[in-house]
Amino acid sequence: MTNLTTRSEHACFGGRLGFHAHTSTETGTEMRFAVFTPPRALQGEKVPALYYLAGLTCTEETFVIKAGAQRLAAELGLMLVACDTSPRGLDIPGDSDAWDFGVGAGFYLDATQAPWAPHYRMGSYVNAELPALIESNFPARADRRGIFGHSMGGHGALVTALRDPDRWHSASAFAPICNPAAVPWGQKAFGNYLGDQDRAAWERYDASLLMRARVFPRELLVDQGMSDQFLESQLHPQALDAAAKASGQSLRLRRHAGYDHSYWFIQSFVADHLQHHARQLLS
Amino acid sequence: MTNLTTRSEHACFGGRLGFHAHTSTETGTEMRFAVFTPPRALQGEKVPALYYLAGLTCTEETFVIKAGAQRLAAELGLMLVACDTSPRGLDIPGDSDAWDFGVGAGFYLDATQAPWAPHYRMGSYVNAELPALIESNFPARADRRGIFGHSMGGHGALVTALRDPDRWHSASAFAPICNPAAVPWGQKAFGNYLGDQDRAAWERYDASLLMRARVFPRELLVDQGMSDQFLESQLHPQALDAAAKASGQSLRLRRHAGYDHSYWFIQSFVADHLQHHARQLLS
Repeated sequence: MTNLTTRSEHACFGGRLGFHAHTSTETGTEMRFAVFTPPRALQGEKVPALYYLAGLTCTEETFVIKAGAQRLAAELGLMLVACDTSPRGLDIPGDSDAWDFGVGAGFYLDATQAPWAPHYRMGSYVNAELPALIESNFPARADRRGIFGHSMGGHGALVTALRDPDRWHSASAFAPICNPAAVPWGQKAFGNYLGDQDRAAWERYDASLLMRARVFPRELLVDQGMSDQFLESQLHPQALDAAAKASGQSLRLRRHAGYDHSYWFIQSFVADHLQHHARQLLS
Repeated sequence: MTNLTTRSEHACFGGRLGFHAHTSTETGTEMRFAVFTPPRALQGEKVPALYYLAGLTCTEETFVIKAGAQRLAAELGLMLVACDTSPRGLDIPGDSDAWDFGVGAGFYLDATQAPWAPHYRMGSYVNAELPALIESNFPARADRRGIFGHSMGGHGALVTALRDPDRWHSASAFAPICNPAAVPWGQKAFGNYLGDQDRAAWERYDASLLMRARVFPRELLVDQGMSDQFLESQLHPQALDAAAKASGQSLRLRRHAGYDHSYWFIQSFVADHLQHHARQLLS
Protein backbone atom coordinates (compact mmCIF):
# COMPACT_ATOMS: atom_id res chain seq x y z
CA MET A 1 0.00 0.00 0.00
CA THR A 2 1.09 3.53 -0.67
CA ASN A 3 1.01 6.29 1.88
CA LEU A 4 -0.08 8.97 -0.51
CA THR A 5 -1.42 12.17 0.99
CA THR A 6 -2.97 15.08 -0.87
CA ARG A 7 -1.91 18.50 0.36
CA SER A 8 -4.18 20.53 -1.90
CA GLU A 9 -6.15 20.25 -5.10
CA HIS A 10 -7.31 22.92 -7.54
CA ALA A 11 -9.49 23.03 -10.63
CA CYS A 12 -7.33 24.12 -13.56
CA PHE A 13 -8.22 24.22 -17.27
CA GLY A 14 -11.06 21.79 -16.69
CA GLY A 15 -8.65 19.31 -15.12
CA ARG A 16 -7.23 19.01 -11.63
CA LEU A 17 -3.90 20.12 -10.23
CA GLY A 18 -2.91 18.35 -7.03
CA PHE A 19 0.01 18.69 -4.65
CA HIS A 20 0.81 15.38 -3.00
CA ALA A 21 3.32 13.72 -0.70
CA HIS A 22 4.41 10.19 0.15
CA THR A 23 7.17 8.43 2.03
CA SER A 24 9.70 7.25 -0.52
CA THR A 25 11.39 3.90 -0.07
CA GLU A 26 14.26 5.12 -2.26
CA THR A 27 15.07 8.27 -0.32
CA GLY A 28 13.65 7.31 3.06
CA THR A 29 12.05 10.74 3.28
CA GLU A 30 8.76 12.38 2.54
CA MET A 31 8.81 13.35 -1.12
CA ARG A 32 6.42 15.89 -2.58
CA PHE A 33 5.15 16.02 -6.14
CA ALA A 34 2.53 17.75 -8.26
CA VAL A 35 0.17 16.07 -10.71
CA PHE A 36 -1.95 17.75 -13.35
CA THR A 37 -4.75 15.44 -14.46
CA PRO A 38 -6.25 16.57 -17.77
CA PRO A 39 -10.01 16.72 -18.25
CA ARG A 40 -10.33 13.51 -20.22
CA ALA A 41 -8.58 11.56 -17.47
CA LEU A 42 -11.10 12.89 -14.94
CA GLN A 43 -13.72 11.31 -17.15
CA GLY A 44 -12.21 7.85 -16.81
CA GLU A 45 -9.71 7.66 -19.65
CA LYS A 46 -6.14 6.63 -18.85
CA VAL A 47 -3.63 9.02 -20.39
CA PRO A 48 0.16 9.09 -20.83
CA ALA A 49 2.07 10.84 -18.04
CA LEU A 50 4.83 13.31 -18.83
CA TYR A 51 7.37 13.66 -16.01
CA TYR A 52 9.18 16.96 -15.48
CA LEU A 53 12.52 17.21 -13.67
CA ALA A 54 13.38 20.67 -12.38
CA GLY A 55 16.72 22.36 -12.00
CA LEU A 56 18.95 23.37 -9.11
CA THR A 57 17.11 24.95 -6.13
CA CYS A 58 13.66 24.17 -7.55
CA THR A 59 10.83 22.16 -6.03
CA GLU A 60 7.80 20.22 -7.23
CA GLU A 61 5.98 23.57 -7.47
CA THR A 62 8.30 25.40 -9.84
CA PHE A 63 7.25 23.94 -13.16
CA VAL A 64 3.50 23.96 -12.61
CA ILE A 65 3.62 27.57 -11.42
CA LYS A 66 6.04 29.02 -13.95
CA ALA A 67 5.96 27.06 -17.20
CA GLY A 68 2.38 27.58 -18.34
CA ALA A 69 2.10 23.95 -19.43
CA GLN A 70 -1.32 23.01 -18.06
CA ARG A 71 -3.27 24.74 -20.84
CA LEU A 72 -1.94 22.57 -23.64
CA ALA A 73 -1.62 19.44 -21.48
CA ALA A 74 -5.37 19.76 -20.85
CA GLU A 75 -6.02 20.04 -24.56
CA LEU A 76 -3.67 17.23 -25.62
CA GLY A 77 -4.68 14.87 -22.83
CA LEU A 78 -1.32 14.54 -21.12
CA MET A 79 -0.88 14.10 -17.39
CA LEU A 80 1.95 16.23 -15.98
CA VAL A 81 3.99 14.99 -13.01
CA ALA A 82 6.58 17.24 -11.35
CA CYS A 83 8.76 15.96 -8.51
CA ASP A 84 11.17 17.59 -6.11
CA THR A 85 14.88 17.96 -6.86
CA SER A 86 16.30 16.04 -3.88
CA PRO A 87 15.36 14.53 -0.54
CA ARG A 88 14.82 17.16 2.14
CA GLY A 89 14.89 17.32 5.91
CA LEU A 90 17.78 14.92 6.45
CA ASP A 91 20.26 17.47 7.80
CA ILE A 92 23.22 15.52 6.45
CA PRO A 93 26.36 17.58 7.17
CA GLY A 94 27.14 19.58 4.03
CA ASP A 95 23.76 19.12 2.38
CA SER A 96 22.84 22.81 2.63
CA ASP A 97 26.18 24.60 2.34
CA ALA A 98 25.75 25.39 -1.37
CA TRP A 99 22.86 25.93 -3.75
CA ASP A 100 24.38 23.59 -6.33
CA PHE A 101 24.90 20.51 -4.17
CA GLY A 102 22.83 18.50 -1.69
CA VAL A 103 19.36 19.80 -0.90
CA GLY A 104 17.71 20.95 -4.15
CA ALA A 105 20.51 19.38 -6.17
CA GLY A 106 20.03 15.61 -6.25
CA PHE A 107 21.12 15.37 -9.90
CA TYR A 108 18.71 12.48 -10.58
CA LEU A 109 21.27 9.78 -9.84
CA ASP A 110 21.77 7.10 -7.20
CA ALA A 111 24.66 8.12 -4.95
CA THR A 112 27.25 5.48 -4.10
CA GLN A 113 29.29 7.45 -1.58
CA ALA A 114 28.80 8.13 2.14
CA PRO A 115 26.95 9.97 3.54
CA TRP A 116 24.73 10.37 0.45
CA ALA A 117 24.16 6.80 -0.70
CA PRO A 118 21.30 5.82 1.65
CA HIS A 119 19.08 8.76 0.69
CA TYR A 120 20.24 10.50 -2.48
CA ARG A 121 18.61 8.01 -4.82
CA MET A 122 16.72 10.34 -7.17
CA GLY A 123 17.77 8.19 -10.13
CA SER A 124 15.75 5.17 -9.05
CA TYR A 125 13.09 7.40 -7.56
CA VAL A 126 12.35 9.04 -10.90
CA ASN A 127 12.89 5.99 -13.07
CA ALA A 128 10.81 3.51 -11.10
CA GLU A 129 9.33 4.43 -7.72
CA LEU A 130 7.48 7.57 -8.78
CA PRO A 131 5.99 6.13 -11.99
CA ALA A 132 4.78 3.07 -10.06
CA LEU A 133 3.16 5.34 -7.50
CA ILE A 134 1.55 7.48 -10.20
CA GLU A 135 0.28 4.52 -12.19
CA SER A 136 -1.25 2.96 -9.07
CA ASN A 137 -2.97 6.11 -7.88
CA PHE A 138 -3.77 8.26 -10.91
CA PRO A 139 -5.35 7.50 -14.31
CA ALA A 140 -1.94 7.17 -16.03
CA ARG A 141 -1.09 4.61 -18.66
CA ALA A 142 1.75 2.25 -17.70
CA ASP A 143 2.74 1.66 -21.33
CA ARG A 144 3.54 5.26 -22.27
CA ARG A 145 5.76 7.61 -20.26
CA GLY A 146 7.49 10.78 -21.30
CA ILE A 147 10.19 12.71 -19.47
CA PHE A 148 11.61 16.20 -19.79
CA GLY A 149 13.34 18.76 -17.64
CA HIS A 150 15.40 21.90 -17.31
CA SER A 151 19.12 22.36 -16.65
CA MET A 152 19.98 19.74 -13.98
CA GLY A 153 16.57 18.28 -14.79
CA GLY A 154 17.30 18.31 -18.51
CA HIS A 155 20.38 16.24 -17.69
CA GLY A 156 18.17 13.96 -15.61
CA ALA A 157 15.58 13.54 -18.34
CA LEU A 158 18.12 12.71 -21.06
CA VAL A 159 20.06 10.32 -18.85
CA THR A 160 16.95 8.57 -17.56
CA ALA A 161 15.58 8.05 -21.06
CA LEU A 162 18.93 6.93 -22.50
CA ARG A 163 19.57 4.50 -19.64
CA ASP A 164 16.17 2.83 -19.80
CA PRO A 165 14.49 3.37 -23.18
CA ASP A 166 12.15 0.45 -22.59
CA ARG A 167 10.50 2.43 -19.79
CA TRP A 168 10.49 5.86 -21.46
CA HIS A 169 8.85 6.60 -24.79
CA SER A 170 9.67 10.27 -25.28
CA ALA A 171 12.23 12.71 -23.92
CA SER A 172 13.21 16.35 -24.27
CA ALA A 173 15.11 19.02 -22.40
CA PHE A 174 15.41 22.76 -21.88
CA ALA A 175 18.99 23.98 -21.49
CA PRO A 176 20.26 20.66 -20.11
CA ILE A 177 23.61 20.08 -18.46
CA CYS A 178 24.66 18.02 -21.46
CA ASN A 179 28.06 16.84 -20.34
CA PRO A 180 28.17 17.02 -16.54
CA ALA A 181 31.44 15.12 -16.25
CA ALA A 182 33.11 18.07 -18.00
CA VAL A 183 31.65 21.05 -16.12
CA PRO A 184 31.83 22.41 -12.55
CA TRP A 185 28.23 21.67 -11.49
CA GLY A 186 28.51 18.07 -12.64
CA GLN A 187 32.02 17.51 -11.36
CA LYS A 188 31.04 18.72 -7.90
CA ALA A 189 27.92 16.55 -7.82
CA PHE A 190 29.49 13.43 -9.34
CA GLY A 191 32.61 13.75 -7.22
CA ASN A 192 30.60 13.81 -4.03
CA TYR A 193 27.73 11.46 -4.92
CA LEU A 194 29.69 8.95 -7.04
CA GLY A 195 33.27 9.45 -5.86
CA ASP A 196 36.24 10.87 -7.68
CA GLN A 197 37.67 7.52 -8.76
CA ASP A 198 34.75 5.78 -10.44
CA ARG A 199 34.76 7.20 -13.96
CA ALA A 200 32.49 4.40 -15.20
CA ALA A 201 29.81 5.64 -12.78
CA TRP A 202 30.24 9.17 -14.10
CA GLU A 203 29.76 7.93 -17.65
CA ARG A 204 26.48 6.24 -16.70
CA TYR A 205 25.06 9.62 -15.68
CA ASP A 206 26.41 11.81 -18.47
CA ALA A 207 24.09 12.20 -21.50
CA SER A 208 26.87 13.06 -23.93
CA LEU A 209 29.00 10.10 -22.85
CA LEU A 210 26.02 7.71 -22.75
CA MET A 211 24.85 8.77 -26.19
CA ARG A 212 28.13 7.79 -27.80
CA ALA A 213 27.42 4.18 -26.82
CA ARG A 214 23.65 3.97 -27.24
CA VAL A 215 20.72 5.75 -28.83
CA PHE A 216 17.24 6.57 -27.68
CA PRO A 217 14.97 5.03 -30.31
CA ARG A 218 13.00 8.21 -31.07
CA GLU A 219 13.91 11.82 -31.75
CA LEU A 220 15.04 13.90 -28.78
CA LEU A 221 14.14 17.60 -28.62
CA VAL A 222 16.53 20.01 -26.88
CA ASP A 223 16.05 23.79 -26.70
CA GLN A 224 18.87 26.11 -25.69
CA GLY A 225 18.84 29.88 -25.24
CA MET A 226 21.88 31.62 -26.68
CA SER A 227 21.88 34.31 -23.95
CA ASP A 228 21.84 31.67 -21.24
CA GLN A 229 24.21 32.78 -18.51
CA PHE A 230 25.33 29.16 -17.95
CA LEU A 231 25.75 28.15 -21.58
CA GLU A 232 29.53 28.32 -21.81
CA SER A 233 30.39 27.25 -18.30
CA GLN A 234 27.91 24.49 -17.51
CA LEU A 235 25.65 23.36 -20.34
CA HIS A 236 27.75 22.38 -23.41
CA PRO A 237 25.08 21.48 -25.98
CA GLN A 238 27.86 21.06 -28.53
CA ALA A 239 28.98 17.93 -26.66
CA LEU A 240 25.50 16.44 -26.99
CA ASP A 241 25.36 17.40 -30.64
CA ALA A 242 28.69 15.73 -31.31
CA ALA A 243 27.63 12.58 -29.45
CA ALA A 244 24.40 12.40 -31.43
CA LYS A 245 26.28 12.70 -34.68
CA ALA A 246 28.73 10.00 -33.56
CA SER A 247 26.08 7.46 -32.61
CA GLY A 248 23.35 8.38 -35.07
CA GLN A 249 20.98 9.61 -32.35
CA SER A 250 18.07 11.56 -33.79
CA LEU A 251 18.39 14.92 -32.02
CA ARG A 252 16.55 18.14 -32.74
CA LEU A 253 18.76 20.74 -31.04
CA ARG A 254 17.37 24.27 -31.39
CA ARG A 255 19.37 27.34 -30.47
CA HIS A 256 17.30 30.44 -29.67
CA ALA A 257 18.89 33.87 -29.92
CA GLY A 258 18.28 36.16 -26.95
CA TYR A 259 16.80 33.65 -24.51
CA ASP A 260 18.31 33.10 -21.07
CA HIS A 261 18.18 30.23 -18.54
CA SER A 262 14.88 31.26 -16.91
CA TYR A 263 11.34 29.99 -16.97
CA TRP A 264 10.57 32.90 -19.34
CA PHE A 265 12.56 30.82 -21.83
CA ILE A 266 10.82 27.59 -20.84
CA GLN A 267 7.30 29.02 -21.08
CA SER A 268 8.12 30.38 -24.54
CA PHE A 269 8.81 26.90 -25.92
CA VAL A 270 6.94 24.54 -23.61
CA ALA A 271 4.13 24.08 -26.16
CA ASP A 272 6.61 22.67 -28.66
CA HIS A 273 7.78 20.18 -26.04
CA LEU A 274 4.28 19.06 -25.17
CA GLN A 275 3.55 18.58 -28.88
CA HIS A 276 6.79 16.60 -29.26
CA HIS A 277 5.80 14.29 -26.41
CA ALA A 278 2.19 14.01 -27.58
CA ARG A 279 3.35 12.88 -31.01
CA GLN A 280 5.47 10.10 -29.52
CA LEU A 281 3.20 9.13 -26.63
CA LEU A 282 -0.15 9.21 -28.39
CA SER A 283 0.83 7.70 -31.73
CA MET B 1 12.35 63.31 -16.73
CA THR B 2 11.57 59.98 -15.22
CA ASN B 3 13.90 58.01 -13.05
CA LEU B 4 13.11 54.66 -14.56
CA THR B 5 15.52 51.82 -13.82
CA THR B 6 15.48 48.37 -15.31
CA ARG B 7 16.18 45.58 -12.84
CA SER B 8 16.15 42.72 -15.35
CA GLU B 9 14.93 41.87 -18.83
CA HIS B 10 14.18 38.52 -20.42
CA ALA B 11 13.23 37.31 -23.87
CA CYS B 12 9.77 35.75 -23.67
CA PHE B 13 7.53 34.53 -26.52
CA GLY B 14 9.47 36.63 -28.98
CA GLY B 15 8.79 39.73 -26.90
CA ARG B 16 10.51 41.15 -23.84
CA LEU B 17 9.60 40.90 -20.18
CA GLY B 18 11.17 43.58 -18.02
CA PHE B 19 11.17 44.28 -14.31
CA HIS B 20 11.50 47.98 -13.61
CA ALA B 21 11.41 50.52 -10.80
CA HIS B 22 10.93 54.26 -10.44
CA THR B 23 10.36 56.79 -7.70
CA SER B 24 6.67 57.55 -7.61
CA THR B 25 5.51 61.09 -6.96
CA GLU B 26 2.16 59.72 -5.76
CA THR B 27 3.51 57.33 -3.14
CA GLY B 28 6.86 58.98 -2.49
CA THR B 29 8.50 55.58 -2.63
CA GLU B 30 10.25 53.35 -5.13
CA MET B 31 7.56 51.46 -6.99
CA ARG B 32 8.29 48.34 -8.98
CA PHE B 33 6.41 47.09 -12.01
CA ALA B 34 6.69 44.52 -14.78
CA VAL B 35 6.12 45.16 -18.47
CA PHE B 36 5.69 42.57 -21.20
CA THR B 37 6.33 44.12 -24.59
CA PRO B 38 4.91 41.96 -27.40
CA PRO B 39 6.98 41.19 -30.50
CA ARG B 40 5.26 43.67 -32.78
CA ALA B 41 5.99 46.49 -30.35
CA LEU B 42 9.69 45.58 -30.40
CA GLN B 43 9.48 46.15 -34.13
CA GLY B 44 8.33 49.74 -33.71
CA GLU B 45 4.55 49.49 -33.55
CA LYS B 46 2.76 51.15 -30.62
CA VAL B 47 0.29 48.79 -28.99
CA PRO B 48 -2.44 49.09 -26.36
CA ALA B 49 -1.33 48.40 -22.80
CA LEU B 50 -3.36 46.21 -20.50
CA TYR B 51 -2.79 46.95 -16.80
CA TYR B 52 -3.14 44.20 -14.22
CA LEU B 53 -3.85 44.88 -10.56
CA ALA B 54 -2.98 42.03 -8.20
CA GLY B 55 -4.63 40.95 -4.98
CA LEU B 56 -3.71 41.07 -1.30
CA THR B 57 -0.07 40.12 -0.49
CA CYS B 58 0.95 40.02 -4.17
CA THR B 59 3.66 41.99 -5.96
CA GLU B 60 4.43 43.11 -9.50
CA GLU B 61 5.85 39.62 -10.14
CA THR B 62 2.80 37.55 -9.27
CA PHE B 63 0.77 37.91 -12.43
CA VAL B 64 3.57 37.55 -14.94
CA ILE B 65 4.86 34.44 -13.17
CA LYS B 66 1.59 32.68 -12.44
CA ALA B 67 -1.08 33.67 -14.95
CA GLY B 68 0.38 32.41 -18.21
CA ALA B 69 -0.72 35.54 -20.05
CA GLN B 70 2.38 36.36 -22.07
CA ARG B 71 1.74 33.70 -24.73
CA LEU B 72 -1.52 35.18 -25.96
CA ALA B 73 -0.48 38.80 -25.30
CA ALA B 74 2.42 38.20 -27.69
CA GLU B 75 0.06 36.83 -30.30
CA LEU B 76 -2.60 39.52 -29.91
CA GLY B 77 -0.15 42.41 -29.67
CA LEU B 78 -1.02 43.61 -26.19
CA MET B 79 1.47 45.10 -23.76
CA LEU B 80 1.01 43.82 -20.20
CA VAL B 81 1.82 46.06 -17.23
CA ALA B 82 1.70 44.71 -13.68
CA CYS B 83 2.32 46.98 -10.70
CA ASP B 84 2.80 46.38 -7.00
CA THR B 85 -0.09 46.32 -4.52
CA SER B 86 1.03 49.13 -2.20
CA PRO B 87 3.96 51.34 -1.35
CA ARG B 88 6.69 49.48 0.53
CA GLY B 89 9.54 50.35 2.86
CA LEU B 90 7.79 53.17 4.73
CA ASP B 91 7.55 51.41 8.09
CA ILE B 92 4.40 53.28 9.01
CA PRO B 93 3.21 51.93 12.39
CA GLY B 94 0.57 49.29 11.67
CA ASP B 95 1.44 48.84 8.00
CA SER B 96 2.66 45.28 8.46
CA ASP B 97 0.55 43.93 11.29
CA ALA B 98 -1.89 42.12 9.02
CA TRP B 99 -1.78 40.59 5.55
CA ASP B 100 -5.02 42.31 4.52
CA PHE B 101 -4.11 45.90 5.36
CA GLY B 102 -1.16 48.22 4.72
CA VAL B 103 1.82 46.74 2.89
CA GLY B 104 0.56 44.55 0.05
CA ALA B 105 -2.98 45.87 0.55
CA GLY B 106 -3.22 49.38 -0.87
CA PHE B 107 -6.71 48.77 -2.28
CA TYR B 108 -6.05 51.02 -5.30
CA LEU B 109 -7.47 54.13 -3.64
CA ASP B 110 -6.13 57.48 -2.42
CA ALA B 111 -6.12 57.48 1.37
CA THR B 112 -7.45 60.56 3.12
CA GLN B 113 -6.60 59.64 6.70
CA ALA B 114 -3.38 59.92 8.70
CA PRO B 115 -0.90 58.31 8.63
CA TRP B 116 -1.80 56.80 5.24
CA ALA B 117 -2.76 59.83 3.15
CA PRO B 118 0.72 61.02 2.08
CA HIS B 119 1.79 57.66 0.63
CA TYR B 120 -1.13 55.31 0.12
CA ARG B 121 -2.20 56.83 -3.20
CA MET B 122 -2.47 53.74 -5.36
CA GLY B 123 -5.66 55.12 -6.92
CA SER B 124 -3.94 58.03 -8.64
CA TYR B 125 -0.82 55.97 -9.16
CA VAL B 126 -2.68 53.40 -11.25
CA ASN B 127 -5.06 55.80 -12.95
CA ALA B 128 -2.56 58.42 -14.05
CA GLU B 129 1.07 58.26 -12.92
CA LEU B 130 1.85 54.74 -14.09
CA PRO B 131 0.17 55.06 -17.51
CA ALA B 132 2.01 58.34 -18.12
CA LEU B 133 5.30 56.66 -17.21
CA ILE B 134 4.54 53.69 -19.45
CA GLU B 135 3.46 55.78 -22.39
CA SER B 136 6.60 57.91 -22.14
CA ASN B 137 9.02 55.03 -21.89
CA PHE B 138 7.51 52.05 -23.71
CA PRO B 139 5.81 51.66 -27.12
CA ALA B 140 2.32 51.94 -25.64
CA ARG B 141 -0.57 53.78 -27.23
CA ALA B 142 -1.96 56.65 -25.16
CA ASP B 143 -5.43 56.37 -26.70
CA ARG B 144 -6.18 52.79 -25.70
CA ARG B 145 -5.78 51.38 -22.18
CA GLY B 146 -7.28 48.29 -20.62
CA ILE B 147 -7.35 47.29 -16.97
CA PHE B 148 -8.05 44.07 -15.14
CA GLY B 149 -7.20 42.43 -11.86
CA HIS B 150 -7.86 39.78 -9.25
CA SER B 151 -9.66 40.00 -5.92
CA MET B 152 -8.54 43.34 -4.39
CA GLY B 153 -7.15 44.07 -7.85
CA GLY B 154 -10.45 43.15 -9.47
CA HIS B 155 -12.05 45.74 -7.23
CA GLY B 156 -9.35 48.19 -8.28
CA ALA B 157 -9.82 47.51 -11.99
CA LEU B 158 -13.60 47.90 -11.89
CA VAL B 159 -13.48 51.04 -9.76
CA THR B 160 -10.74 52.65 -11.84
CA ALA B 161 -12.60 52.02 -15.09
CA LEU B 162 -15.96 53.14 -13.70
CA ARG B 163 -14.52 56.31 -12.19
CA ASP B 164 -12.66 57.40 -15.31
CA PRO B 165 -14.10 55.76 -18.45
CA ASP B 166 -12.54 58.40 -20.66
CA ARG B 167 -9.12 57.06 -19.71
CA TRP B 168 -9.95 53.34 -19.79
CA HIS B 169 -11.31 51.51 -22.79
CA SER B 170 -11.75 47.99 -21.46
CA ALA B 171 -12.03 46.36 -18.06
CA SER B 172 -12.45 42.92 -16.55
CA ALA B 173 -11.91 41.12 -13.27
CA PHE B 174 -11.23 37.74 -11.71
CA ALA B 175 -13.06 37.14 -8.44
CA PRO B 176 -13.23 40.86 -7.56
CA ILE B 177 -14.20 42.29 -4.19
CA CYS B 178 -17.41 43.57 -5.73
CA ASN B 179 -18.88 45.45 -2.81
CA PRO B 180 -16.03 46.30 -0.43
CA ALA B 181 -18.16 48.62 1.72
CA ALA B 182 -20.18 45.55 2.75
CA VAL B 183 -17.43 43.02 3.56
CA PRO B 184 -14.67 42.72 6.17
CA TRP B 185 -11.67 43.25 3.87
CA GLY B 186 -13.16 46.41 2.43
CA GLN B 187 -14.50 47.75 5.70
CA LYS B 188 -11.09 47.40 7.33
CA ALA B 189 -9.31 49.08 4.44
CA PHE B 190 -11.85 51.84 3.87
CA GLY B 191 -12.22 52.52 7.59
CA ASN B 192 -8.50 53.06 7.96
CA TYR B 193 -7.64 54.69 4.63
CA LEU B 194 -10.81 56.77 4.19
CA GLY B 195 -12.14 57.09 7.73
CA ASP B 196 -15.23 55.60 9.30
CA GLN B 197 -17.38 58.71 8.83
CA ASP B 198 -17.03 59.52 5.14
CA ARG B 199 -19.53 57.21 3.45
CA ALA B 200 -19.39 59.27 0.24
CA ALA B 201 -15.70 58.40 -0.04
CA TRP B 202 -16.51 54.74 0.48
CA GLU B 203 -19.05 54.89 -2.33
CA ARG B 204 -16.48 56.33 -4.71
CA TYR B 205 -14.35 53.20 -4.27
CA ASP B 206 -17.05 50.53 -4.32
CA ALA B 207 -17.82 49.05 -7.76
CA SER B 208 -21.34 47.92 -6.86
CA LEU B 209 -22.24 51.32 -5.41
CA LEU B 210 -20.58 53.24 -8.26
CA MET B 211 -22.30 51.14 -10.89
CA ARG B 212 -25.74 52.06 -9.62
CA ALA B 213 -25.02 55.68 -10.56
CA ARG B 214 -22.95 55.28 -13.72
CA VAL B 215 -22.07 52.76 -16.41
CA PHE B 216 -18.88 51.84 -18.15
CA PRO B 217 -19.62 52.31 -21.86
CA ARG B 218 -18.53 48.83 -22.94
CA GLU B 219 -19.18 45.31 -21.68
CA LEU B 220 -17.37 44.27 -18.49
CA LEU B 221 -16.20 40.68 -18.07
CA VAL B 222 -16.09 39.15 -14.57
CA ASP B 223 -15.17 35.53 -13.81
CA GLN B 224 -15.89 33.96 -10.43
CA GLY B 225 -15.06 30.47 -9.19
CA MET B 226 -17.86 28.82 -7.24
CA SER B 227 -15.47 26.98 -4.91
CA ASP B 228 -13.69 30.23 -4.06
CA GLN B 229 -12.98 30.22 -0.34
CA PHE B 230 -13.74 33.96 -0.13
CA LEU B 231 -16.90 34.00 -2.23
CA GLU B 232 -19.47 34.26 0.55
CA SER B 233 -17.47 36.35 2.99
CA GLN B 234 -15.65 38.88 0.82
CA LEU B 235 -16.50 38.91 -2.89
CA HIS B 236 -20.30 39.27 -3.37
CA PRO B 237 -20.67 39.09 -7.15
CA GLN B 238 -24.44 39.17 -6.65
CA ALA B 239 -24.12 42.81 -5.57
CA LEU B 240 -22.35 43.69 -8.80
CA ASP B 241 -24.90 41.75 -10.81
CA ALA B 242 -27.76 43.62 -9.13
CA ALA B 243 -26.07 46.98 -9.68
CA ALA B 244 -25.53 46.20 -13.36
CA LYS B 245 -29.18 45.28 -13.77
CA ALA B 246 -30.23 48.47 -11.97
CA SER B 247 -28.14 50.81 -14.12
CA GLY B 248 -28.15 48.91 -17.39
CA GLN B 249 -24.42 48.19 -17.27
CA SER B 250 -23.42 45.55 -19.78
CA LEU B 251 -21.84 42.87 -17.59
CA ARG B 252 -20.80 39.37 -18.53
CA LEU B 253 -20.58 37.61 -15.14
CA ARG B 254 -19.52 33.98 -15.45
CA ARG B 255 -19.69 31.55 -12.55
CA HIS B 256 -17.36 28.55 -12.83
CA ALA B 257 -18.13 25.42 -10.82
CA GLY B 258 -15.20 23.94 -8.92
CA TYR B 259 -12.73 26.81 -9.29
CA ASP B 260 -11.14 28.46 -6.23
CA HIS B 261 -9.50 31.87 -5.62
CA SER B 262 -6.05 30.89 -6.88
CA TYR B 263 -3.98 31.63 -9.97
CA TRP B 264 -4.90 28.12 -11.16
CA PHE B 265 -8.33 29.69 -11.68
CA ILE B 266 -6.89 32.81 -13.28
CA GLN B 267 -4.64 30.94 -15.71
CA SER B 268 -7.61 28.82 -16.78
CA PHE B 269 -9.56 31.83 -18.00
CA VAL B 270 -6.92 34.48 -18.70
CA ALA B 271 -7.11 33.87 -22.45
CA ASP B 272 -10.78 34.86 -22.44
CA HIS B 273 -9.86 38.10 -20.66
CA LEU B 274 -7.10 38.93 -23.12
CA GLN B 275 -9.50 38.29 -26.00
CA HIS B 276 -12.11 40.51 -24.30
CA HIS B 277 -9.62 43.35 -23.99
CA ALA B 278 -8.24 42.83 -27.49
CA ARG B 279 -11.73 43.13 -28.95
CA GLN B 280 -12.30 46.45 -27.20
CA LEU B 281 -8.78 47.86 -27.49
CA LEU B 282 -7.97 46.87 -31.05
CA SER B 283 -11.33 47.54 -32.68
